[in-house]
Amino acid sequence: MFFASDNSGPAHPAVLDALTAANTGYTLGYGNDDLTREVQQKIRDLFEAPEAAVYLVGTGTAANALALSVLCQPFETVFCAARAHIVEDECNAPEFYTGGAKLTLVGDGDQMTPAQLRSAIEAEENRGVHGPQRGAVSITNVAELGNTYSLAELAALCDVAKEFGLPVHLDGARFSQACAALNCTPAEMSWKLGVDVAVFGGTKNGLMGVEAVVIFDPKRAYEFELRRKRGGHLFSKHRYLAAQMNAFLTDDLWLNLAQKANDSAALLYNGLEELGVDLITQTPANVIFFNLPLGAHKALQKAGAVYYLMGDETGPDASIVTGRLVCDWSIGSAGVERFLSELRRILA
Amino acid sequence: MFFASDNSGPAHPAVLDALTAANTGYTLGYGNDDLTREVQQKIRDLFEAPEAAVYLVGTGTAANALALSVLCQPFETVFCAARAHIVEDECNAPEFYTGGAKLTLVGDGDQMTPAQLRSAIEAEENRGVHGPQRGAVSITNVAELGNTYSLAELAALCDVAKEFGLPVHLDGARFSQACAALNCTPAEMSWKLGVDVAVFGGTKNGLMGVEAVVIFDPKRAYEFELRRKRGGHLFSKHRYLAAQMNAFLTDDLWLNLAQKANDSAALLYNGLEELGVDLITQTPANVIFFNLPLGAHKALQKAGAVYYLMGDETGPDASIVTGRLVCDWSIGSAGVERFLSELRRILA
Amino acid sequence: MFFASDNSGPAHPAVLDALTAANTGYTLGYGNDDLTREVQQKIRDLFEAPEAAVYLVGTGTAANALALSVLCQPFETVFCAARAHIVEDECNAPEFYTGGAKLTLVGDGDQMTPAQLRSAIEAEENRGVHGPQRGAVSITNVAELGNTYSLAELAALCDVAKEFGLPVHLDGARFSQACAALNCTPAEMSWKLGVDVAVFGGTKNGLMGVEAVVIFDPKRAYEFELRRKRGGHLFSKHRYLAAQMNAFLTDDLWLNLAQKANDSAALLYNGLEELGVDLITQTPANVIFFNLPLGAHKALQKAGAVYYLMGDETGPDASIVTGRLVCDWSIGSAGVERFLSELRRILA
Amino acid sequence: MFFASDNSGPAHPAVLDALTAANTGYTLGYGNDDLTREVQQKIRDLFEAPEAAVYLVGTGTAANALALSVLCQPFETVFCAARAHIVEDECNAPEFYTGGAKLTLVGDGDQMTPAQLRSAIEAEENRGVHGPQRGAVSITNVAELGNTYSLAELAALCDVAKEFGLPVHLDGARFSQACAALNCTPAEMSWKLGVDVAVFGGTKNGLMGVEAVVIFDPKRAYEFELRRKRGGHLFSKHRYLAAQMNAFLTDDLWLNLAQKANDSAALLYNGLEELGVDLITQTPANVIFFNLPLGAHKALQKAGAVYYLMGDETGPDASIVTGRLVCDWSIGSAGVERFLSELRRILA
Repeated sequence: MFFASDNSGPAHPAVLDALTAANTGYTLGYGNDDLTREVQQKIRDLFEAPEAAVYLVGTGTAANALALSVLCQPFETVFCAARAHIVEDECNAPEFYTGGAKLTLVGDGDQMTPAQLRSAIEAEENRGVHGPQRGAVSITNVAELGNTYSLAELAALCDVAKEFGLPVHLDGARFSQACAALNCTPAEMSWKLGVDVAVFGGTKNGLMGVEAVVIFDPKRAYEFELRRKRGGHLFSKHRYLAAQMNAFLTDDLWLNLAQKANDSAALLYNGLEELGVDLITQTPANVIFFNLPLGAHKALQKAGAVYYLMGDETGPDASIVTGRLVCDWSIGSAGVERFLSELRRILA
Repeated sequence: MFFASDNSGPAHPAVLDALTAANTGYTLGYGNDDLTREVQQKIRDLFEAPEAAVYLVGTGTAANALALSVLCQPFETVFCAARAHIVEDECNAPEFYTGGAKLTLVGDGDQMTPAQLRSAIEAEENRGVHGPQRGAVSITNVAELGNTYSLAELAALCDVAKEFGLPVHLDGARFSQACAALNCTPAEMSWKLGVDVAVFGGTKNGLMGVEAVVIFDPKRAYEFELRRKRGGHLFSKHRYLAAQMNAFLTDDLWLNLAQKANDSAALLYNGLEELGVDLITQTPANVIFFNLPLGAHKALQKAGAVYYLMGDETGPDASIVTGRLVCDWSIGSAGVERFLSELRRILA
Repeated sequence: MFFASDNSGPAHPAVLDALTAANTGYTLGYGNDDLTREVQQKIRDLFEAPEAAVYLVGTGTAANALALSVLCQPFETVFCAARAHIVEDECNAPEFYTGGAKLTLVGDGDQMTPAQLRSAIEAEENRGVHGPQRGAVSITNVAELGNTYSLAELAALCDVAKEFGLPVHLDGARFSQACAALNCTPAEMSWKLGVDVAVFGGTKNGLMGVEAVVIFDPKRAYEFELRRKRGGHLFSKHRYLAAQMNAFLTDDLWLNLAQKANDSAALLYNGLEELGVDLITQTPANVIFFNLPLGAHKALQKAGAVYYLMGDETGPDASIVTGRLVCDWSIGSAGVERFLSELRRILA
Repeated sequence: MFFASDNSGPAHPAVLDALTAANTGYTLGYGNDDLTREVQQKIRDLFEAPEAAVYLVGTGTAANALALSVLCQPFETVFCAARAHIVEDECNAPEFYTGGAKLTLVGDGDQMTPAQLRSAIEAEENRGVHGPQRGAVSITNVAELGNTYSLAELAALCDVAKEFGLPVHLDGARFSQACAALNCTPAEMSWKLGVDVAVFGGTKNGLMGVEAVVIFDPKRAYEFELRRKRGGHLFSKHRYLAAQMNAFLTDDLWLNLAQKANDSAALLYNGLEELGVDLITQTPANVIFFNLPLGAHKALQKAGAVYYLMGDETGPDASIVTGRLVCDWSIGSAGVERFLSELRRILA
């Protein structure tokens, strides 16, 4: 019953095997090795983007902040959902990497509507040099509260961005889970919609710590390389990033693991619904936010469920508190069913 | 005959075994796991520094730049050797992480003398707010051209820094190799001399990609954590960094691997000396810079030796060009002897 | 009928006289002159703050951004009203000078309530290193939409800041006008409430371009000096800043000019009220935001009134548009009465 | 005998007159006034550069740092003389404004030779993403130790920059004095040589505090405006900067004042030569560095001469210490002759 995060579970065994296989002989460092080149090509193939530049980094925050740094100037602002990861959980990394750009918060949840986005962009138009300039639009799929944009919704957001000539960043820490949920291809969820730079996350889907940044316009590529090095994110023993990603790309592991995670979450979501639990997440992939009385949370945790509560845990027992459940590829149905069974007992 | 870098060879098998062993069950992320805590304690023990704060990051550039960012203000300058790694090979990462501090280059090689350091510090004293303020002193051991400071030399540099009240950063990408060369303990090469923050490198000594930053004054610790997160260097699946470092710390692997690398380099160095080769490195650990006619380099490379030439490779055959040979833990005596034998043939 | 801004009118003649008087003989630069020292002491006296450090800069944006840079770390966030000048009209200068701190927008207007401030601060508490840390609180009086906080309101905001141990910045581009409106002393509107750094603006009250930054805790003083120089805001011919400020401080010019501006605005405000105009500003000093049909605005402007419209001017005639009227010290009652008379005619 | 700096003397009376003349009526702020537009056009005319963008700022450090910020990326390095003002006297402002670019010090004095510049640029070519990239070349005329490049020398430096495709920044805090010394036009000392952005300084030549930044490629103009605002260097009451610059441009005041300063310095230089004084400055305009025994300096200062000594003033009387003499437009021959007469007496 470990639902704390999709970074809590083990890496898939194929990842370990790939590391072992790569751990032989000598190679040049910093990505100048055959395995890295092979993986870059596989990602270009997967994304049907033969011109794309592909880079591997170790963390999602690095991937996002570096991506924004090539899309946004220091005197500009990034439009994103009010509760985006880049707002809440990166300790000002976007501001750091962009050299001090602002984030303009759109809406009040983890998703934006096209109308909200348009309105926020339009509001940054009348002040000339006094206000920040319009910079990039950053979209997250799967979003922070577990909601998944449909392709149509993503297209509508990208269309607004393009109408104003703004580049689009896709935070894809859970790119695979979104693809699985939408039953779409990576190309359909990225450049075909107008995404300029996509993060194709691996860490939250069975790798040890690798994210690919896919830059569809190769003119931005060398600047990205320089900023990656300047940020300390160019790994010398690059083959160990490449090996993980290679396992991910082999036999659709990325998609299969995402599907496993989503399947567990669907089981969980349906179970919660049946129990009449107040669900915050409306369009889930592998993350579910939900409300329960604090006492019920405490009882679940006492029974062995591990997950985070959001906000105040100090109130009286009866107060309603939001919890977050995340399913990773490994959690399986047994854990989910035990959780639901405990909850059923508690609510009874 | 692969002497390109100590990041070219394989990770030690114990590292793979440790990763596999760690790859089971669920843990909290971001370093909130038992293995990370155990490794932090082992490093405190190794350094005989019970109060030290210990953090793991993925690259040496990250380790150095983050260390400097808690030692140096944006309006200050870092004193370091003219050919330090932080000057030449980090694409302005120190400037980025410090918010725009300057690097004052001391001397013209990879090492500073205490007199040069004192003179450089004194030169920054007469301009009040007009010039940068004196910030940190950054020392590298093993230095970039392969030279190893003795403990007495390090002590003299630290004494100069302390005389002016300046904190000391030790770039220890090859900390282990320096310890092995000096036959000293980590404490003797760090806080006992006055080092404030030491980088204890693993990547160039058999790990896949982990460096420990050891902060002897814990008052700087939380700021480091925030800057690490802001830089995108807080790994969520921290156990995989910790597992590597744990293998490193078990049965003195860090020291044994360093000794292997140094032994190979000593064999190589002695062989080059016997052949009358012009050696730039004077006090080697596992890196050797040397001069040869370009033709000799080309013949060596044609025979299968892999290593970097520094600077102009386009001149006439007879011109003297500097080469760099780096021995890693795995290279062994056979490769060295073959290299020397090829060179003997070529020079004959 | 020139109500575009309080930076639109002429400097007071005493300012020109002071410049002329200062323009004789030789002095050392960068503030090392007697006139600067005299002015610094006069400001300490005015603020009843004998320990305060006082610095002169040329623009309000410089004053605010430099003040925040000594109160807030790059990994922190500044709490301020959603429509603060530092948010809307400084093109990311606060982010630039703080090295990438965030601004957390409180409420949705130009003022914060203590409850809103507390709630925003509390919301930044649960994420550890993942979110930005709590930094400074920034308060503006007179606020951007012309509202003036009472001393009690300011005290309540400062109390919230102090409860969380956060420093307080007071953006006082219109400090004088606020003092005049509140009939209070500078000390009563600054350190006596808990303000740590106050901007005492001159540019919007009859000077050519000088703002004083008053730092009540002198421990932050030297860092401010370094950041001022690093920002390019240390004027070499400092006597010309000092001379302007000296005129400002002589015979209460600062207060008299502010009173003139406020008197004109009061006349205007009362006239608008009598005409039944929808007034946005509730507690005015010398700035008034108000709503009119676009046609009425256009008619006023055609009649010679100069002032800014906020937002969309492209809609149909009947749409309601916000206008901003700013009175400076020089505008006088004749201009105001002519404006009201024109408006009376138009609305009739 | 006030030779401390050319920022020590009074502003020219015409500057005060121009301020007074400008101090009437109402204008829009931030440069949207007729006088600013007129002055911008006059500078375009003076520089024979009808397409140039012209901006006014208040300090030389702001002018230089902002200019570099539109010429150089954070991951690049600026090539400049080892003792350039941007190195020694701007407290890391170039690093701040460029977002952390490096300065590569060329030569060891205040001037570079083309060979030194070429060598420094070439040295930054072999490290790919590991080292900083080649950014801008920054040249100062008049240089920090008082030396004036000839047009041929400037052309040779610009040619090296252009050979590598690098933009050129001209630090012209003493642009006028250099023009006067070289008897050339502003165009001949700027874009005709390949300069991309020139600073046309007024503060050190009789203004209160205004520098013009002349950007010959208007594509960089709007970015400059944004960075100026973000740096807090956009003055709201712009007419007072414009008025000063207007006086400067009227009846060749800029050139006449520079000629006066240079004439005084020439008188001084010749006098020092006749007295056999060891002169460091070889090609003076209005600044002279020279060596004297400390005792002689002390005697001069006791006699009323005001000027700075460089470096150690604490040695024994006989030690040789460098002094700096700067002539401004107002100093005149009487002061110079009195100084020489005192020195003659002292040396006798």
